[in-house]
Amino acid sequence: MPSADPTSSTLADAGAAALDETARRAILDAVDAAFDRQLAFTQELIREPSLRGREAGAQDLMERAMAERGLELDRWQLDPEEIGTHVGAGAVAISYEGMTNVVGSYEPAETLGRSLILNGHVDVVPDGPHEQWARNPWDAHIEDGWLYGRGSGDMKAGLGAMLFAFDAVRAAGFDPAARIHFQSVVEEESTGNGTLAAIQRGYTADAVLIPEPEEDMLVRANVGVIWAKVRVGGTPTHVREMTSGFNAIDAAIAVVAQLRVLEAEWNAERSRHPHFEHLDHPINFNIGQISGGDWPSSVPAWCEFELRAALYPGMTADEAWARILEQLAIAEAALGTADATVTAEKTGFYAEGYVLEEGSDAERLLGETHEAAFGSPLDSFTTPGYIDSRLFVLYEGLPTLVYGPKTEQIHGYDERTSIDSLRRVTKSIALFIAGWCGVTPRG
Amino acid sequence: MPSADPTSSTLADAGAAALDETARRAILDAVDAAFDRQLAFTQELIREPSLRGREAGAQDLMERAMAERGLELDRWQLDPEEIGTHVGAGAVAISYEGMTNVVGSYEPAETLGRSLILNGHVDVVPDGPHEQWARNPWDAHIEDGWLYGRGSGDMKAGLGAMLFAFDAVRAAGFDPAARIHFQSVVEEESTGNGTLAAIQRGYTADAVLIPEPEEDMLVRANVGVIWAKVRVGGTPTHVREMTSGFNAIDAAIAVVAQLRVLEAEWNAERSRHPHFEHLDHPINFNIGQISGGDWPSSVPAWCEFELRAALYPGMTADEAWARILEQLAIAEAALGTADATVTAEKTGFYAEGYVLEEGSDAERLLGETHEAAFGSPLDSFTTPGYIDSRLFVLYEGLPTLVYGPKTEQIHGYDERTSIDSLRRVTKSIALFIAGWCGVTPRG
Repeated sequence: MPSADPTSSTLADAGAAALDETARRAILDAVDAAFDRQLAFTQELIREPSLRGREAGAQDLMERAMAERGLELDRWQLDPEEIGTHVGAGAVAISYEGMTNVVGSYEPAETLGRSLILNGHVDVVPDGPHEQWARNPWDAHIEDGWLYGRGSGDMKAGLGAMLFAFDAVRAAGFDPAARIHFQSVVEEESTGNGTLAAIQRGYTADAVLIPEPEEDMLVRANVGVIWAKVRVGGTPTHVREMTSGFNAIDAAIAVVAQLRVLEAEWNAERSRHPHFEHLDHPINFNIGQISGGDWPSSVPAWCEFELRAALYPGMTADEAWARILEQLAIAEAALGTADATVTAEKTGFYAEGYVLEEGSDAERLLGETHEAAFGSPLDSFTTPGYIDSRLFVLYEGLPTLVYGPKTEQIHGYDERTSIDSLRRVTKSIALFIAGWCGVTPRG
Repeated sequence: MPSADPTSSTLADAGAAALDETARRAILDAVDAAFDRQLAFTQELIREPSLRGREAGAQDLMERAMAERGLELDRWQLDPEEIGTHVGAGAVAISYEGMTNVVGSYEPAETLGRSLILNGHVDVVPDGPHEQWARNPWDAHIEDGWLYGRGSGDMKAGLGAMLFAFDAVRAAGFDPAARIHFQSVVEEESTGNGTLAAIQRGYTADAVLIPEPEEDMLVRANVGVIWAKVRVGGTPTHVREMTSGFNAIDAAIAVVAQLRVLEAEWNAERSRHPHFEHLDHPINFNIGQISGGDWPSSVPAWCEFELRAALYPGMTADEAWARILEQLAIAEAALGTADATVTAEKTGFYAEGYVLEEGSDAERLLGETHEAAFGSPLDSFTTPGYIDSRLFVLYEGLPTLVYGPKTEQIHGYDERTSIDSLRRVTKSIALFIAGWCGVTPRG
C-alpha cells in the first residue's frame, strides 16, 4: 500500500528534466542492480503457459508480484455482457469463466504529478508443434543474450519491465508522486476485451504506456483487425461422383482467392492513408487456420477457415465488415451452384486502428528517457498488427505510448527477446515513471 | 453347419438353366416372403455405427446371423505385419486392435457345383455433421421406398442381401451344392486390408460376388486408389510480418494446384485406357480433409491435407506414387523458399485398378439371373471408385462380380438405398447362388 505519511513539502517538478543527473543515475543503476531478479521473474512468468483460457497461473504470479510491492489489488472476471455494450468489443466466442484481469494500484501520499497506466497482457498465442522449437517453448532459457519462449517478447518481458521499472524508482530513493495502475490483462491476442474491461471498470490516467515488443520504438499508427470464421458448406458425395458433387475445400480455396482480391484493393489505397503510404503491404489478410472434411474418399461437404483481416485507421469495423461480407457474397455467387453457401461470423477482434497524435508531453518525455537509456533518438513507426492501445486512444482520448523491447519470431517458433534491449527499455520506462509522475524522496 | 447327410444321388446340373421355372419361382417367392425380415436385419445393421475402428458391434451382429444359419464361423483380428507382406496392402495408419473379419462358411454334403465367395464390408465412412441430415444417420428409417442411413447402401444392404439370398434358396427347398464363404470384412473404405487378410487366410472359390451399391449394374472396370497425407511446413511469424513469413495454408493451396495439373494430365490420357475413354473425368484427385494453423493472427506454419488419387488399371501403385512425389517436388520448388517443405506419406489405399475380363461363366450367369429379377438386361459400367474386388481379380485371378442395388448419396448426407432395387438384387443373387453352386433338394 502507498505510504501513509504524506510528504507534500518535497514536491519535485513533474518532469524528467526535473530529475538531476544523480537521481537519473541512481534509477538507472537500480535497474541494473535488480536486473537478474527481473530476468528470473520474467522466466517464471514465461513458464506459466498462459494460453487463452489458461491465464490463471500467470495472473496469480502477477497478483503476488503486485502484492509484494504493496499495490492495492483488484482482480475480477471478465463479464461478456458488460463488454458487449462497448462499441470496441470483440466477439466473445469462448467462455470467460475463470478469466480474470489483475490491476495493482499505487497511490502516492499526495498527488503532485500526472497519473499513469502501465498495461500489459499475460495471454499468449499457441505454441505450435514442439518439435519445431529448438527448446521447449515454456523453458524460458537464456542463450547468447536472448531470452527464449512463447510469450517471452509478446509480452512477458514487458510485464516484468513495468514492475521492475517501478521498483528501480523506489530503490533509488523516490516515491512516484501520482497514481499508477499496473494492469495485467487477458484477451489481447484475440479480442482486446481484457483492456476494454479495465476501461469499463473505471481505470483512467493522464497517459498510458504499453511495453509491447516494438523493436525499441514507439508505435505511431496501427491497423484495425477483424477476426471471422468463414464457413463453406454444400452437399457431399462419394468421390466417384466428385465432378457432380460440390467440394467444400476446393470452394474454400476459391473464396480465399476472392478475399485476396479485396486485400489487394485495400493495399492499393495505402497512399491515401497517412503513416501507411510507405509500407509495401500494410493490409494483411491472414488465413490462420483451416479445417474441412472428414474422410479422404468423401467429397468434403464443409470447410471453414479463420480470417484475420486488417483495416486502416479511419475505417470503422462495421464498414470493413460490410465490405468483407460483400466480397464473400461475390465469392459465393462465383461458385456457380445454389447448393453452396458461404457464411461468416465474427469470432474475436472487431477493432479499428488508430494514429497516435504527435507532439504530446508523454511522447516528448519518452523521447528523452529513451535517449538516456539507449543513447540514440526514439524512432516511431507504423505496425500492421493489433494493439490494445487503440482502446485508450479511440475511446478515452489518452496519449498512449506503445514502446518495448527488440524481439524475434513473436507468434513463431523460438520466439525470443533481446536481453540488452529489455534492460534499456526497463531503464527508459523507469525514468519515464519518475518523469511523468514526478517523485518525492521516499518517506 | 452343413447337413451331415450326403445326398449325392440328387445332383442337379450346376447352372441356372438347370433350375426349372417352379424352382426359380419358389426362390423368388422366398425372397419376397422374408423381405420384411431382411429389411429389419439391414436396419439393425445400419444402427450399428461401424465407423473405422468401431466395427465390433456390426461384426457381432453378422457373426450371430451367420451362426443362426448354421455356418462354420471364423473370426480373427487383422494382423498388420502379415498384411504388410502383400503387394496389394494398404498402409496401416491406425491400430488394428479389436478389428476383426468374420467369415461364415457353408459346406455342402457333397460338392457338385462351383464354390462361391460372397463378400461385403461392414465399415462405413464418417457421418459428418448430423444437422446436415434430415434424420439421424443411424436411425435407419424407411420412407417412400428408400432405406436411409450411413452405410445403408455402402454396404449394409448388400451384406443383408448375401445372407437372405442364401436363405431363400434353402427356404425354397434346396441346398446349395458347393462351398460358400460369407465374408464380412473391415477396412474396405480405407485400405482394402480386410479382404486382403481373408485372402491371406486361405479363402478362395471359383467366383466372387460383392454386392456393393452399383446401380443394379456390373462393374466392368475401376480405378486404383492411393491415399496420402501431404504436409506443408515452414517457419511461422506474427501476422504483422506476414509478407516475410511463410504461410503454410497459402502454400498448401499452391500444392493442390500442382496436383490438379497432374490430375488433368492423367485425365487427358483417358482415350488410351479401355473402359475409361468415354468418361469425362475418370481420374479424381480428391482433397478430402485439410487442417492447418492454430491461431487466426499467427501465420500458419503447417498445413496438411488428405489426398485421394485415382490411377488407371495397368499402372501400379508404385508407378503412380512415384509420379505423385515428383509432382509434389515440383510444387515444393515452386514455393520459392528453402524454408518450405512439402512431404507426403501413405496413409491407406495403395491399390491398382482392374478390368473384369468379359465372357466368364459367372458373368453370363449373372446376366440371366439379373434379367429374371429385373426383366431387363444386365449393364456393365466403369466406376471411378475403389472396390475390394481388385484383390480377387489382380492377385487371385478370380471372376469377381461387383453388383448391387441402386443408392443415392453414399458418403454423403441422407445416404439411401432403393428398397425395390434391393429386393430385386437379392432375388438375382439368390438365383445366382442356386445357379453357380448348383442345388440339391434339402436333406
